[in-house]
Amino acid sequence: MAHHPIRGLVLAAFLSSMIAAPAFGQSLDLSKSTIVDLTHSFDAKTIYWPTSPSGFELKSLHNGLTERGYFYAANSFCSPEHGGTHLDAPLHFAQGHWTNAEIPVDRFVGPAFVIDVSAKAAANPDYTLTPEDIAEWEEAHGRIPQGAIVLLRTGWSARWSDRKAYLGDDTPGDATHLHFPGYGAQAAALLVVDRRAKLIGIDTASVDNGPSQDFLVHRIVAGADAAGLENLDNLDKLPATGAVVFALPMKISGGTGGPARVVAVVAK
Amino acid sequence: MAHHPIRGLVLAAFLSSMIAAPAFGQSLDLSKSTIVDLTHSFDAKTIYWPTSPSGFELKSLHNGLTERGYFYAANSFCSPEHGGTHLDAPLHFAQGHWTNAEIPVDRFVGPAFVIDVSAKAAANPDYTLTPEDIAEWEEAHGRIPQGAIVLLRTGWSARWSDRKAYLGDDTPGDATHLHFPGYGAQAAALLVVDRRAKLIGIDTASVDNGPSQDFLVHRIVAGADAAGLENLDNLDKLPATGAVVFALPMKISGGTGGPARVVAVVAK
Repeated sequence: MAHHPIRGLVLAAFLSSMIAAPAFGQSLDLSKSTIVDLTHSFDAKTIYWPTSPSGFELKSLHNGLTERGYFYAANSFCSPEHGGTHLDAPLHFAQGHWTNAEIPVDRFVGPAFVIDVSAKAAANPDYTLTPEDIAEWEEAHGRIPQGAIVLLRTGWSARWSDRKAYLGDDTPGDATHLHFPGYGAQAAALLVVDRRAKLIGIDTASVDNGPSQDFLVHRIVAGADAAGLENLDNLDKLPATGAVVFALPMKISGGTGGPARVVAVVAK
Repeated sequence: MAHHPIRGLVLAAFLSSMIAAPAFGQSLDLSKSTIVDLTHSFDAKTIYWPTSPSGFELKSLHNGLTERGYFYAANSFCSPEHGGTHLDAPLHFAQGHWTNAEIPVDRFVGPAFVIDVSAKAAANPDYTLTPEDIAEWEEAHGRIPQGAIVLLRTGWSARWSDRKAYLGDDTPGDATHLHFPGYGAQAAALLVVDRRAKLIGIDTASVDNGPSQDFLVHRIVAGADAAGLENLDNLDKLPATGAVVFALPMKISGGTGGPARVVAVVAK
């Protein structure tokens, strides 16, 4: 903690850290910040896991004038919890751990630390984040503090929503030939167990990489009561440090996860 | 604007305004703020409009050990867009206006101005907010600035999720005998047209009060490209001014609204 004593820092410090001369204590001015949307829209092309029984379905309940003469439109929808930009609750892979609605709400809000492995992933679509990548990142930006929201940028959001390009295979019902980058198990353990990150996210379909069949990263993250964010967008619009993320999932009672709207507050 | 020049104020000003001696320019320290959840959970008891074809439905896809020996749980769900804690997009009552996914994301984030009519609503369950109530509030707290998120506290969230107590009537399919407080049309116009509030919310099932059959408040708000928030919780935990709200709806392409996770950042 001596290296990077983040717990006492003002929010302004996160936001000012991207400015040329970091000024800890400088105030955050909403009128000088941008809200960046890290969320893909839900529609018929939204990507779900290949074994998902269905995708996103929207049904119109009304769309037009009512008997009383005014316009009115409303829909209903159906969705598996784990598709599109969504949150994984610890319960997803850790029995008895927090459901979606049980996660303390302050775990959805915090400083973002963005690790960019897009160059390595471009060279190897199965690339996984390593402890060495984290060490290199911390050398440049400082130690990742407790309570961090770590976001792994692979560049994969540019492939959305081309299923074959994004997942590596678009064979319906088959999740055994997928290719996309992810977190490695050791790196995930370093982040959620040692650094005590509360949330880790990625711009691919899974925190485990495509070839994973044991979902070890999911199990490590869930077991540490951290949550996951998958299918994020626009990570290229965030600084390595300095953004503050609000990752707010639908509050599903008993949920193992669910659609999340994820935004970042970024200094202009 | 001379009266209350909010546009240049730092976020810290909103958060410090609840402290005894407002110190504009004081920094926001996340470690000295609380995140308040303004959201009801979605479950089988979640309240939808009486004419809604269905409520919230959760279906387990898996819950237990997999063939590989690790625990895994996942669900799918169905819901009409307009039930539980949710956002109304302008399209809901204004043809051709913004869908859920089209609303600029900065309209979901802003300073909260909480108007408490719970005493008047306790005496009259059909009470509607008046321009006089707003004048009285502004006399005490200052003029509501452009881009405000206005939240009307009626006290009705304490009745959640008792349908009869919350809606005034629990006859299935019948929305003609409802009783609960809301915004009045003149007050709504004052807020979204004159004051240019970007979002107005309430702790009841509708921004129009129970007896309304013409949904005039909805139409005024939608026509002004403002959004609505309904079925909010915990408004009693917010100061009249000083909180910053993040009201993030599920990003439904073509949506007329949808489930929203709404939180407020409040100084401790």
